[in-house]
Amino acid sequence: MAENKKTTIILFSGDYDKAMAAYIIANGAAAYGHDVTIFHTFWGLNALRKENQVPVKKGFMEKMFGKMMPRGVDKMGLSKMNYLGMGPKMIKKVMKQHNAMPLPQLVEMAQEQDVSLLACTMTMDLLGLRKEELIDGLDYGGVAAYIGESEEANITLFI
Amino acid sequence: MAENKKTTIILFSGDYDKAMAAYIIANGAAAYGHDVTIFHTFWGLNALRKENQVPVKKGFMEKMFGKMMPRGVDKMGLSKMNYLGMGPKMIKKVMKQHNAMPLPQLVEMAQEQDVSLLACTMTMDLLGLRKEELIDGLDYGGVAAYIGESEEANITLFI
Amino acid sequence: MAENKKTTIILFSGDYDKAMAAYIIANGAAAYGHDVTIFHTFWGLNALRKENQVPVKKGFMEKMFGKMMPRGVDKMGLSKMNYLGMGPKMIKKVMKQHNAMPLPQLVEMAQEQDVSLLACTMTMDLLGLRKEELIDGLDYGGVAAYIGESEEANITLFI
Repeated sequence: MAENKKTTIILFSGDYDKAMAAYIIANGAAAYGHDVTIFHTFWGLNALRKENQVPVKKGFMEKMFGKMMPRGVDKMGLSKMNYLGMGPKMIKKVMKQHNAMPLPQLVEMAQEQDVSLLACTMTMDLLGLRKEELIDGLDYGGVAAYIGESEEANITLFI
Repeated sequence: MAENKKTTIILFSGDYDKAMAAYIIANGAAAYGHDVTIFHTFWGLNALRKENQVPVKKGFMEKMFGKMMPRGVDKMGLSKMNYLGMGPKMIKKVMKQHNAMPLPQLVEMAQEQDVSLLACTMTMDLLGLRKEELIDGLDYGGVAAYIGESEEANITLFI
Repeated sequence: MAENKKTTIILFSGDYDKAMAAYIIANGAAAYGHDVTIFHTFWGLNALRKENQVPVKKGFMEKMFGKMMPRGVDKMGLSKMNYLGMGPKMIKKVMKQHNAMPLPQLVEMAQEQDVSLLACTMTMDLLGLRKEELIDGLDYGGVAAYIGESEEANITLFI
């Protein structure tokens, strides 16, 4: 009985470069036959937001969080050398020059490889994010779902 | 012989949100029957400081570190959107609105669930922190203690 | 057949304190008989740069990245309390007072203990870093090499 190897990644960070690292590792592990789960919690949830505003009813605090946080991977900043947004532009430019895959395509590729993109329901509740505001094809769960996936995993990372 | 599963977390960060993530995962894993250890090293040690100043003899550098670093989890800032301290207030407010557990209670809950809160003695030595300045009920050790706990663990994270 | 235990660390961060944590854990695990790999990717690659500028041909963007990023571990900043470079000086001073090993020696010690220092070739390509600009005795590979090392590892960390 040869079970698949397993990799689980907690994506806590809302930084473009860290999300890129998470998705590159996830796609790499999936290519090597691992079952892969990315648990998007706290700021990492922003990677799953739709680019356009979706009309949903929100309270005052929820609206504020919604406005202050980036909508989707393409709006995120860098963890280092962000330089008021110039850093991400430079990174995206050199990635294009080297035919490296930008983050939105890395997310698509992960979905095509059946990587489970797990959205943290506790964070959604706290920050007032609704399912309609997130991209399609996600799984939903809390820390229990993460523990369940991870306790048999070969590689466990927090990014 | 069914041994317990095991989770070990290195809490390196001194950010409120990251410490919260560490303690939520630790409490979740403990609830699922895992033996859990949180190894508090570098800035993560601040999560274990008592809120009040404790009179101990210190050198000049030790005093400076003691003053610059937050005393206990309630004084920590956010890794993102700290906005001169407004971010943590907002997070704490929405957490209250949603009946989510704030960090000091998450630490208490971990202690009630027998999560081992391991304080890094090397960091204590470097930053001049004394046992009297930290909360009660801690374990003490260095990287060797961490490796010993982690080499049989199912989930290993660095936060 | 008693195989060695295994620890793999992704060093993504370019911060002095985080690199120090990575190398302290790596040296600790190696001392306990683990096979250890540190996969240096993104900003973590800066820990492997030679201190002096090495004359290599570069494009404009590559030159800019080369100038903006620190050359080697001794030039890195702290993740917290950097205070325009005063933080690292303070840390280095207290480390000296306590006879703690500074980062350049930790890197040497890792090499002496046969820790595999793996440089991410994809990042090198993106940021325009050449082998001549990195210290000697490195291994080179991409995410596939990391997955291969990590899927049998006991401890897996992302720093």
